[in-house]
Amino acid sequence: MTSAELHQLLAAVRGGTVDPDDATARIVALLREAPYQDLGFARVDTHRELRQGFPEVILGLGKTPPQIAAIAERIVSSGQALLVTRATADAFAAVQAVVPGAEYHEVAKIISFQQGELPQGRGTVLIVCAGTSDLPIAEESAVTASLMGNCVDRLYDVGVAGLHRLLSEQARLYSARVIVVVAGMEGALPSVVAGLVEVPVIAVPTSIGYGASFGGITALLGMLNSCANGIAVVNIDNGFGAGAMASLINHL
Amino acid sequence: MTSAELHQLLAAVRGGTVDPDDATARIVALLREAPYQDLGFARVDTHRELRQGFPEVILGLGKTPPQIAAIAERIVSSGQALLVTRATADAFAAVQAVVPGAEYHEVAKIISFQQGELPQGRGTVLIVCAGTSDLPIAEESAVTASLMGNCVDRLYDVGVAGLHRLLSEQARLYSARVIVVVAGMEGALPSVVAGLVEVPVIAVPTSIGYGASFGGITALLGMLNSCANGIAVVNIDNGFGAGAMASLINHL
Amino acid sequence: MTSAELHQLLAAVRGGTVDPDDATARIVALLREAPYQDLGFARVDTHRELRQGFPEVILGLGKTPPQIAAIAERIVSSGQALLVTRATADAFAAVQAVVPGAEYHEVAKIISFQQGELPQGRGTVLIVCAGTSDLPIAEESAVTASLMGNCVDRLYDVGVAGLHRLLSEQARLYSARVIVVVAGMEGALPSVVAGLVEVPVIAVPTSIGYGASFGGITALLGMLNSCANGIAVVNIDNGFGAGAMASLINHL
Amino acid sequence: MTSAELHQLLAAVRGGTVDPDDATARIVALLREAPYQDLGFARVDTHRELRQGFPEVILGLGKTPPQIAAIAERIVSSGQALLVTRATADAFAAVQAVVPGAEYHEVAKIISFQQGELPQGRGTVLIVCAGTSDLPIAEESAVTASLMGNCVDRLYDVGVAGLHRLLSEQARLYSARVIVVVAGMEGALPSVVAGLVEVPVIAVPTSIGYGASFGGITALLGMLNSCANGIAVVNIDNGFGAGAMASLINHL
Amino acid sequence: MTSAELHQLLAAVRGGTVDPDDATARIVALLREAPYQDLGFARVDTHRELRQGFPEVILGLGKTPPQIAAIAERIVSSGQALLVTRATADAFAAVQAVVPGAEYHEVAKIISFQQGELPQGRGTVLIVCAGTSDLPIAEESAVTASLMGNCVDRLYDVGVAGLHRLLSEQARLYSARVIVVVAGMEGALPSVVAGLVEVPVIAVPTSIGYGASFGGITALLGMLNSCANGIAVVNIDNGFGAGAMASLINHL
Amino acid sequence: MTSAELHQLLAAVRGGTVDPDDATARIVALLREAPYQDLGFARVDTHRELRQGFPEVILGLGKTPPQIAAIAERIVSSGQALLVTRATADAFAAVQAVVPGAEYHEVAKIISFQQGELPQGRGTVLIVCAGTSDLPIAEESAVTASLMGNCVDRLYDVGVAGLHRLLSEQARLYSARVIVVVAGMEGALPSVVAGLVEVPVIAVPTSIGYGASFGGITALLGMLNSCANGIAVVNIDNGFGAGAMASLINHL
Amino acid sequence: MTSAELHQLLAAVRGGTVDPDDATARIVALLREAPYQDLGFARVDTHRELRQGFPEVILGLGKTPPQIAAIAERIVSSGQALLVTRATADAFAAVQAVVPGAEYHEVAKIISFQQGELPQGRGTVLIVCAGTSDLPIAEESAVTASLMGNCVDRLYDVGVAGLHRLLSEQARLYSARVIVVVAGMEGALPSVVAGLVEVPVIAVPTSIGYGASFGGITALLGMLNSCANGIAVVNIDNGFGAGAMASLINHL
Amino acid sequence: MTSAELHQLLAAVRGGTVDPDDATARIVALLREAPYQDLGFARVDTHRELRQGFPEVILGLGKTPPQIAAIAERIVSSGQALLVTRATADAFAAVQAVVPGAEYHEVAKIISFQQGELPQGRGTVLIVCAGTSDLPIAEESAVTASLMGNCVDRLYDVGVAGLHRLLSEQARLYSARVIVVVAGMEGALPSVVAGLVEVPVIAVPTSIGYGASFGGITALLGMLNSCANGIAVVNIDNGFGAGAMASLINHL
Repeated sequence: MTSAELHQLLAAVRGGTVDPDDATARIVALLREAPYQDLGFARVDTHRELRQGFPEVILGLGKTPPQIAAIAERIVSSGQALLVTRATADAFAAVQAVVPGAEYHEVAKIISFQQGELPQGRGTVLIVCAGTSDLPIAEESAVTASLMGNCVDRLYDVGVAGLHRLLSEQARLYSARVIVVVAGMEGALPSVVAGLVEVPVIAVPTSIGYGASFGGITALLGMLNSCANGIAVVNIDNGFGAGAMASLINHL
Repeated sequence: MTSAELHQLLAAVRGGTVDPDDATARIVALLREAPYQDLGFARVDTHRELRQGFPEVILGLGKTPPQIAAIAERIVSSGQALLVTRATADAFAAVQAVVPGAEYHEVAKIISFQQGELPQGRGTVLIVCAGTSDLPIAEESAVTASLMGNCVDRLYDVGVAGLHRLLSEQARLYSARVIVVVAGMEGALPSVVAGLVEVPVIAVPTSIGYGASFGGITALLGMLNSCANGIAVVNIDNGFGAGAMASLINHL
Repeated sequence: MTSAELHQLLAAVRGGTVDPDDATARIVALLREAPYQDLGFARVDTHRELRQGFPEVILGLGKTPPQIAAIAERIVSSGQALLVTRATADAFAAVQAVVPGAEYHEVAKIISFQQGELPQGRGTVLIVCAGTSDLPIAEESAVTASLMGNCVDRLYDVGVAGLHRLLSEQARLYSARVIVVVAGMEGALPSVVAGLVEVPVIAVPTSIGYGASFGGITALLGMLNSCANGIAVVNIDNGFGAGAMASLINHL
Repeated sequence: MTSAELHQLLAAVRGGTVDPDDATARIVALLREAPYQDLGFARVDTHRELRQGFPEVILGLGKTPPQIAAIAERIVSSGQALLVTRATADAFAAVQAVVPGAEYHEVAKIISFQQGELPQGRGTVLIVCAGTSDLPIAEESAVTASLMGNCVDRLYDVGVAGLHRLLSEQARLYSARVIVVVAGMEGALPSVVAGLVEVPVIAVPTSIGYGASFGGITALLGMLNSCANGIAVVNIDNGFGAGAMASLINHL
Repeated sequence: MTSAELHQLLAAVRGGTVDPDDATARIVALLREAPYQDLGFARVDTHRELRQGFPEVILGLGKTPPQIAAIAERIVSSGQALLVTRATADAFAAVQAVVPGAEYHEVAKIISFQQGELPQGRGTVLIVCAGTSDLPIAEESAVTASLMGNCVDRLYDVGVAGLHRLLSEQARLYSARVIVVVAGMEGALPSVVAGLVEVPVIAVPTSIGYGASFGGITALLGMLNSCANGIAVVNIDNGFGAGAMASLINHL
Repeated sequence: MTSAELHQLLAAVRGGTVDPDDATARIVALLREAPYQDLGFARVDTHRELRQGFPEVILGLGKTPPQIAAIAERIVSSGQALLVTRATADAFAAVQAVVPGAEYHEVAKIISFQQGELPQGRGTVLIVCAGTSDLPIAEESAVTASLMGNCVDRLYDVGVAGLHRLLSEQARLYSARVIVVVAGMEGALPSVVAGLVEVPVIAVPTSIGYGASFGGITALLGMLNSCANGIAVVNIDNGFGAGAMASLINHL
Repeated sequence: MTSAELHQLLAAVRGGTVDPDDATARIVALLREAPYQDLGFARVDTHRELRQGFPEVILGLGKTPPQIAAIAERIVSSGQALLVTRATADAFAAVQAVVPGAEYHEVAKIISFQQGELPQGRGTVLIVCAGTSDLPIAEESAVTASLMGNCVDRLYDVGVAGLHRLLSEQARLYSARVIVVVAGMEGALPSVVAGLVEVPVIAVPTSIGYGASFGGITALLGMLNSCANGIAVVNIDNGFGAGAMASLINHL
Repeated sequence: MTSAELHQLLAAVRGGTVDPDDATARIVALLREAPYQDLGFARVDTHRELRQGFPEVILGLGKTPPQIAAIAERIVSSGQALLVTRATADAFAAVQAVVPGAEYHEVAKIISFQQGELPQGRGTVLIVCAGTSDLPIAEESAVTASLMGNCVDRLYDVGVAGLHRLLSEQARLYSARVIVVVAGMEGALPSVVAGLVEVPVIAVPTSIGYGASFGGITALLGMLNSCANGIAVVNIDNGFGAGAMASLINHL
């Protein structure tokens, strides 16, 4: 049972179309299920959507395609939406075999299957990225936020070395409720963006760069040390985490 | 002119008690002022409250008491609220000489002077900290959020080595709209808190610890790598940044 | 001669079924052998089981299959049990050619061949891991402890982002004599486990994660800085070391 | 109530000298007390001795003398033994004012006050250190283990550059049930010790050294990478943690 | 003899007011002097002005005041200009005793004594800094460039979190021939400046910041990874080096 | 329109061969074009040559061949010169399909297509490298500087371990207006070169080396800490950046 | 001309079998040759054997097989011995084509061709290594020292975890004039060896290990911080450097 | 008994002036003494001079003055020479009280007391340093080598930024048998020196520098990665270790 269904049930009770005893019975049945299903190699958290507003998300990295498919099957069969990040094409093939309607977002490396009804966030989540090479991570954020029920806008390739590209799009900056800023190399873009707006900025350092970019450490450190207010940072290349955080804020 | 005063002026125009021409004149005068005042060693951003909802905050670190006092004087005389972080007792003495009503929050190392009227955030900002040694940073967050117009709750010394201390306070976790979690050493508390709630968690690593805690790097890395969703991280010991971010989210 | 055989021999002497002179002769012969066998590229420590309770273990990493096979052959032909860690399928093929009864534990990447009789540990060694991706290292620990003569229990995928998965298994935590906790990413699980039990916890950081997990450094640092007591740490991905340490403690 | 008192009470019930109703009343009263006492800046865990076999230990580092004294007073007044690590002379003065019988172990920087009756460990805990400069950390381990109820032996200044100093004391190595090895600089001593014995070795890197010793990182890394089995490592300079871990193992 | 004097001498020869033989004699005498003077603890390079256009500069750091004074005395007595960086007030007192006309630039921590005649650079060297705390390093650059014969302009406290402060001064950016940009924390300012101009930018990271700014490493890395062209970087806090490099370029 | 064409137009106006009205019309048309072209995944900065003296350069790293080709096509069709760095053979094939006249500099990994007329630099840019393995980066610098309109000289394999190789080429050092020094391993060559000349030295650390060279960090740090004046440093392996910086200086 | 040939020539002059004029002519001819040969991508130092006692050695890493072959050809054709380190099989094939008599030492990855007559070192160079995986680096040292004219002894797989393996070979330790000790992981072996002998020990850290061995950094740091005297360290995996240093010392 | 005395005794036996029985008795008495004296906090190695050619040296760092004095007293009273490094003035005062003839080398921070007769090294040990600030470490090397029985030459302030200072002293470089090169900052001097000579070079990185010199790490890394042969490196600021290594080589 998803939270939407639970809400529907209780509304029906209030509306008089469902008998309180029947509702009680269904809720008790729900509580009787273990809050997770033990697959041996994984414990699938089937109640997370009830507790935290979105079902458990599978981090594809480090899991074999059969493991991913087995977990995905459990999530979908319990009536919940599916979201797998860092998913390879092989993982998608394995998932598709058990969840025929699953979709693959290739640039974002995300597998999704939508069911149930998600509450929509109140404003727009804007995804900004500094360069063309940051696209995969920006898309991971954008697709995540979109699947979690948010209106998403994209503003790409507006790095600080050519400020006019960003300044000419200030209107879109001002119309967002939360902004995710994705940048590699020196990671200066979040500071500049946060200095222009008064909404929260989630900064995502990427591993794009070479030499002393150290796989994203430079961008990460730059963002942590931002002289602007209203910035918080997620892990290097963690587009998913930023998208999920933005969604959480946008749903407040 | 603060944003509250601007709002009041425009309301008066709509209400008919102020003539549009007079209002126009006052707004033009406002635009005529430079958007900052140049002190030679500093450019005080006197329009920030209008642009970003809170006046410029002074980072005391690395500035001399006379420099801090001079900037503080400009902010206060332009009718804005004052907030100085990382302020020593010496800095406070210098500020007090020019802003007699200023207050000093000793544990938080913050100097403040309130004037104007701030919009209040919608819910409660909860400040959680792992150990007694993390208090100064937790207080920096709490005082910041409070001065920025938020209802603040404090839950201290609930580190993960004694989980029952945290679990017995779940009600307070659930009643917050945004949570700031402050922890040093291994920095595991944000992961545990974020796994229990469905609101955004701002994680603040502290430099508390010794040996391989490396002045907070361990806590910072732990928080960035959290396996829980809904966490974003600020710089080591950046209690101010977390409080300001939480305030921004709470005012959405 | 293994230590069990030595013990048997001395028991037989006391029981009168073996003549002291014969026993003396056999022990002298044992002392006459060099304490190791020199293969040129390796010195096989054939007396280690007598000195330290378990024969020399081969770290497969960085050795060629023929080198591994040659060392394995010496260990087995001296009547001792065989344990090769970090063994590839190629290494197993090479070993099997000279030790036909050898087994390959695929997930754990361990080759084993059991002979002689090992003393059993007194309690249960519990292997706990945070996520599905930590399985190979957790299995390295579990198989090692099992082959070294311990009753092993496994509790997998109980990371701190979903505390209820761990809390619902507290009975198994309490029934262990030593606990090995395997975790990547922020490595917070050992702190939480050690806060719940009063037995020694051996923490194993894994290289699972991405970005600022730095191949396990974050998990390692988190574990070293644990605010809980009763934790000691082994190298990143050193499932074998943790299993062997747990076995040593369980045999005290 | 300490665990020894609880045990006495239950023995008296079995022996018939205490009425089950009275005992029940006393245990219920115990359960009624919160499991910790909230001092605002700290939550003193007054039930830890019941849960984990030793009362809460105070890490002095980062706490003010008044804070330490306040926590100490609560622990002692709840009938438990007191142990404060990293305690300055000032902290001791503050504690002595509220716990007159407290003792100060100067080299180890530990404040203690013994009451109640601790179960004794089964064998000897041997503390080995590499050089004279490592003494404070070695003593922190030794005093901790001793206060936690263990027979402690000390073997100091036996670093690997003069192996004969260690080899001439092998008898003491062989007679220990657990060994704590404390070393700075290259941290090689635990490898050598663990290669000689078949009991668990807890390795403590110290910050002793200069240049590329990096405040103990070199010793820490050396110990984590030991080629010997049966070693686990604690944080740099964490003499307390090693002593507590050794005590835990010695009490199994 | 300075290069200006040498030039004068040769001009006089051409002009016929000095006899070639006399000139030859003086140049031979110059070549007879060792190209440096050995003070035992230092070799003063008295010909550097002839070879590289500016006399040897003394790095005060790590030298005792008497050592600095002794070297200063040699430089001045050989007719050259004096420049000591990282000079304490004590060092200045010692120098003043032997070079009475020496000046102390307190914020820049520079001791100078001008003599001889320096060629002037062709354009303006602009020193830009991000925040008030960066002033000492910015002044080290400005004073250095000024003493080396450049017209210097200063643009301070124009960090990227308030872009309008920088954008409103674009005219000064465009009128410089070389720009030195000084910034701590995330070090993003050079990228933004270099994106606006078409002259070389010398970037100076400062140690200003806290937590993950790591004493300037973050700013340094950010500058090295700049996505803008036309930037080169000097050591952390090396205001002198940047000023000297800018002067070199401005004298081309 | 390139800056050369703009210059030509204005000269024609002054010369009377173009009517001011026509010129105005053409300039207005230019301003009407957006200053960049939005390809969705990239914003091509088509006015950069006008603003900064050289068209936008494409960093091939992290972009797919089709992305590179699409951007290249826009740059070339707007009448500007093309320069792609870090370009693979695949990228060249894709570019060649849309820009038939493009050239591939194989050692330098640069794709170029020349059109328009570039102003020539005033002196010679000398590219010095320490060893044969540094060639690809040295060539990236040399080809970049050459394409940007500079006379380029090359001095290769003159590392400091055989000083006579460098000292015998001093004449070429002295005849350069700017010097780029490329070195891996300990990166000592820029210090030695800068000690011999009085022109600016741009130092490029390379990732050449092994063990503790850490992919160029050692060379980078060595260059940043140079005891010689007149050195500034670019990112590891950033031959392009050094060549562009040298060109900028040479065009002053 | 090699130094041996030069020595022979001068002996012949003293012996009267060669006329001083002829000898003079030959030496002048030698001085007339440039001290290196410029191949464009490399400057071959053909006089190094005369200056430093051994011809230039080619580091194969980062050079293409044709480059290696071209340099090798010049060295051999100038009558000198050839030594190429880090040479792949491909490089050997290329060299063999131009230097038919060249040999390939496969484990050591060294190509050699001997000609001329090298002076022999006075004692034995002993190469000690800790484990089987360190063999390639140990062999690089051994083959280098051997080709440079030293009597070489090998003592392999004697790591500190099994001290008896080393202690049983003390006689070989005592009979060496210089000792090279090769070890990965914690790198403790040089400390133990240097504590036993009174000859210089050259320590070579290897990249053998995993997890927190960080590609040899741990071993490197351990060796630099050795508490024993008489140790100096070379780069990670620099078996060649250690062999050459040992040879230099052995030839004193 | 020192080795010189032992040698004298045996010579006397051969010469017939001492009876073999008496000599035997004295040697047996020597062997009866423990090879070290246990002071509780230290084990003084009184036989080291017999085993390794020089008595045990005391590293003053991290030891209290009374501890140093107690160890010094034992060494001197056993007839051996005394050498204490990193000794403060306080430590000297404490030593002087028990060893009245002790000397203090202030710049080198060494306490010494000479007795017995040391064998002299065969050639000259040359100590070279790059800058005035490196003096204390250079002197630690020089004084150490001198006290260990070597003829020492000093060549100071000859850093690579002014090559002519070094090149003008080549004669002194060529006349040394071993060279110690001390340098901070980029640490390039050993590469240049080793390229000029054919004797072993011991490189000592110093912590002199600022910013990205990281307390000597940059110099250390530079020296480890030297492109010249015949260099080995000791710990940062380890002037003693280099002096002792040089002495060992010079005594071969």
